[in-house]
Amino acid sequence: MNTTVGEIAALVGGTVLGDASVRLTGLNGIREATAGELTFLADSRYLRHLETTQAAAVLGSRELRDASIPIIQVDEPRQAILKILQRIQKELEPALEPGIHPTALVHSSVHLGKGVVAGPHVVVEEGSTLGDGVELHAGAYVGRDSRIGPGSVLHANVTVCSRVTVGARCVLNHGAVIGSDGFGFARHGDAQVKIPQVGTVILGDNVEVGANSAIDRATFGATVVGDGSKIDNLVQIGHNVRIGKNCIVCGSAAIAGSTVLGDNVTIGGQAGLTGHIEIGDGASVAAGSGVTKSVPPGCTVFGYPAVEHERGRRMHGSLRQLPDALRRIKALEARCAELEGQLHGTPENDS
Amino acid sequence: MNTTVGEIAALVGGTVLGDASVRLTGLNGIREATAGELTFLADSRYLRHLETTQAAAVLGSRELRDASIPIIQVDEPRQAILKILQRIQKELEPALEPGIHPTALVHSSVHLGKGVVAGPHVVVEEGSTLGDGVELHAGAYVGRDSRIGPGSVLHANVTVCSRVTVGARCVLNHGAVIGSDGFGFARHGDAQVKIPQVGTVILGDNVEVGANSAIDRATFGATVVGDGSKIDNLVQIGHNVRIGKNCIVCGSAAIAGSTVLGDNVTIGGQAGLTGHIEIGDGASVAAGSGVTKSVPPGCTVFGYPAVEHERGRRMHGSLRQLPDALRRIKALEARCAELEGQLHGTPENDS
Amino acid sequence: MNTTVGEIAALVGGTVLGDASVRLTGLNGIREATAGELTFLADSRYLRHLETTQAAAVLGSRELRDASIPIIQVDEPRQAILKILQRIQKELEPALEPGIHPTALVHSSVHLGKGVVAGPHVVVEEGSTLGDGVELHAGAYVGRDSRIGPGSVLHANVTVCSRVTVGARCVLNHGAVIGSDGFGFARHGDAQVKIPQVGTVILGDNVEVGANSAIDRATFGATVVGDGSKIDNLVQIGHNVRIGKNCIVCGSAAIAGSTVLGDNVTIGGQAGLTGHIEIGDGASVAAGSGVTKSVPPGCTVFGYPAVEHERGRRMHGSLRQLPDALRRIKALEARCAELEGQLHGTPENDS
Repeated sequence: MNTTVGEIAALVGGTVLGDASVRLTGLNGIREATAGELTFLADSRYLRHLETTQAAAVLGSRELRDASIPIIQVDEPRQAILKILQRIQKELEPALEPGIHPTALVHSSVHLGKGVVAGPHVVVEEGSTLGDGVELHAGAYVGRDSRIGPGSVLHANVTVCSRVTVGARCVLNHGAVIGSDGFGFARHGDAQVKIPQVGTVILGDNVEVGANSAIDRATFGATVVGDGSKIDNLVQIGHNVRIGKNCIVCGSAAIAGSTVLGDNVTIGGQAGLTGHIEIGDGASVAAGSGVTKSVPPGCTVFGYPAVEHERGRRMHGSLRQLPDALRRIKALEARCAELEGQLHGTPENDS
Repeated sequence: MNTTVGEIAALVGGTVLGDASVRLTGLNGIREATAGELTFLADSRYLRHLETTQAAAVLGSRELRDASIPIIQVDEPRQAILKILQRIQKELEPALEPGIHPTALVHSSVHLGKGVVAGPHVVVEEGSTLGDGVELHAGAYVGRDSRIGPGSVLHANVTVCSRVTVGARCVLNHGAVIGSDGFGFARHGDAQVKIPQVGTVILGDNVEVGANSAIDRATFGATVVGDGSKIDNLVQIGHNVRIGKNCIVCGSAAIAGSTVLGDNVTIGGQAGLTGHIEIGDGASVAAGSGVTKSVPPGCTVFGYPAVEHERGRRMHGSLRQLPDALRRIKALEARCAELEGQLHGTPENDS
Repeated sequence: MNTTVGEIAALVGGTVLGDASVRLTGLNGIREATAGELTFLADSRYLRHLETTQAAAVLGSRELRDASIPIIQVDEPRQAILKILQRIQKELEPALEPGIHPTALVHSSVHLGKGVVAGPHVVVEEGSTLGDGVELHAGAYVGRDSRIGPGSVLHANVTVCSRVTVGARCVLNHGAVIGSDGFGFARHGDAQVKIPQVGTVILGDNVEVGANSAIDRATFGATVVGDGSKIDNLVQIGHNVRIGKNCIVCGSAAIAGSTVLGDNVTIGGQAGLTGHIEIGDGASVAAGSGVTKSVPPGCTVFGYPAVEHERGRRMHGSLRQLPDALRRIKALEARCAELEGQLHGTPENDS
């Protein structure tokens, strides 16, 4: 970024208090910003750092009026920051040149949209379709008869297996695997016989999958991730899972086979969901929880086995009092024995 | 699949009730099946969906006699479905053409069995051995002096490091890493000095390893996975772990260094096992549990720290009553104080 | 290894008791060692296995005097073993020939140090810098404008994204991803809008990252791993996390965005840390714990939500007594009711 306070104010529809000609080289947090960087106040807790920040200028709400550096006032600081980040992104990651790298192996039968980018050592197998503007980065792999929707990006070393459907404008981060075999075996005596996994995976539009996450294909039918859902890094999604629209699944979470998530569900980091349950629309699972039963729409659950959040909070709060409670029970037993002794003439032996 | 009810009945040794000439295009669950698909009843809980299914025919046990669509009666529905899935699999994934892709780099010293397939951008380093019928998919890597047993499949972007042994008929799913360094450091003052990991990994026959799982090489000696054991996605197996035969390790589980599993052990999803413990033959660890001590053969454990399952169930059940129990303790203290006051003439101050 | 007891004693500054000419072919544990192998006693618990070991010789402290096989006495057995492992490592993994493999694609603008190794199918994008002696193994990828410090090793199929800094003598294990996008979305109505992640990742010197781990780039600024810190396999590190020096993060742990670790922190396996908290210098998080609040320096925490270790131990210990405690509360209620009845003339109805 190489711009001025005035240019950024114009970009975000803001008002400048102070010198609009001050040059800006980047964006950073109020404590981390160094000379030349723009910082921001989106949360009043950070106001106290305004005096000591090294930043060259600060962006904040219309209420922010008083600073020793130029101020950019805006209506919605978070939306303004989003716009600035989008601009920085464009500068840092210029659009790739369309075209197939000489070392990329795209089968002659592949249906290629306009402006497709295929980087070095990319492989696209027979019968697949790449929509307009698809980007396949170095080492990405697309198996047979798969479809990658327009505008989708497969980062370096992503694997999309055969017969998988990826929607439009999806982002698959580095090392993600879409469509590996589900984990299904039938025990015959001691041996485990593999159950062929002949289903598929369908990712909707605007889905993001994090680095090194894995989404298994269905035994039959499809494992589904709905439009707009976002999956973080190192997430495991078992066969025949169905995830609704606009869900958030945070890092290192795991969802066992055939579990169904509604729309707008949030799964916290490292949470685990057992198989064959349903998580209702708008429900949330707290980080680290283990969910063993279906969760009603809108409900937040916590703990392992997960229970309704407020109840879980009380249970865990009371656990902290338990060592003391055990001492109080012992004391009560002694007091009762004493009372019983006094009433009955001789103390009872209560040990 | 493009077949008929009669042909499927012949394949699975079944009896047709109804029209054997009905055409079938696929297999699906009783709720998910669409026109032309075969469905099945392997679990009586799903019987109620038989009336409303869109399927063209249904496969079930010899007791299934009444449906508005053709029925295929079999002795063992699950085994019949397995056979049908195997047939579909063969149609969907035709055998690969044997041969080394022009972009694959197989060192001249590599011992190549008959019918080996090495896909695009595969690398096999010096001194390794590939058994008959080994399949290495695009981007798979085999380090120096490793052995891949006959019939084993390394899917796209699998890494097998140097001096590793993979048995016969193993399946290594996409992105799995076999033989990376164990996590061993010796503290010298503040610094952590790497302990060279000079051991290896030995996978037995018929082992499956899931997508993006990692199995570390031993410090010395070997990390071992026994014949027939199946490991799901995103599983971490530390150095010098020894897993017996026909074990099941579910997704996102983690087993710390030098822990030993007997035969037929089941490790649930996201379970964690500390290092240097033993899990006896036939033992099970419930999903999400954290195991800190050895587990006797045949025992099922649950919770963190994991305890015997029934006891763990009681502990967690009683935790739900704890908030109420704390209230009851408080009430008891008041009642005792009241009783003590009545007996002693003046109420004691017990707060 | 093909050496003698005498040569190993010379290597480690040890004293031989017995036949120094005995040949040694390897190093192994006291129970696992086979004929020809050297074993060792670094822990007196294993002394009992000395009588039955198949090893050809044993290394131990100066106190070890009595064995039926040759003894190598040393001052510090663990350091001696480290030296022997380093020697074995050198034999097993001979230095690679410097040079760029013909199939490696290193952009002409890349600044190449001396003795760089780039294996088959490596890609290094425009504007990056590879320090002296950097090793990039097969399929490793380095994005644009990144810096790999001297002596660092990227194992097969590692991905280092654009604008990332890797220090000197780092080891990135197979499948690790450094610099994928942080997981940041802004909700606009139902939709999740991606927040561009324009920051970077900075790994210090002597950092190790395990197989298939993922370290996200910062939203802005940097995600940082300090000098000498070691990260195990399948670890997830969110955007803007800052890890100090000489920390240990064990397998399958997950650290959410913006959390800060001091120096010499230990994070146990599968532990999870919520975002925006601070873990003080020298603190430890027990394996499997879920940390929801900042942890003071030097403190060890345990459980979920994690509490100070000793307190957590008491809480979980008391949980085991809870089923019994509930029975005792019920008994006390009956006894109080009985006492109240006796004092008041009629038993109270206390149900």
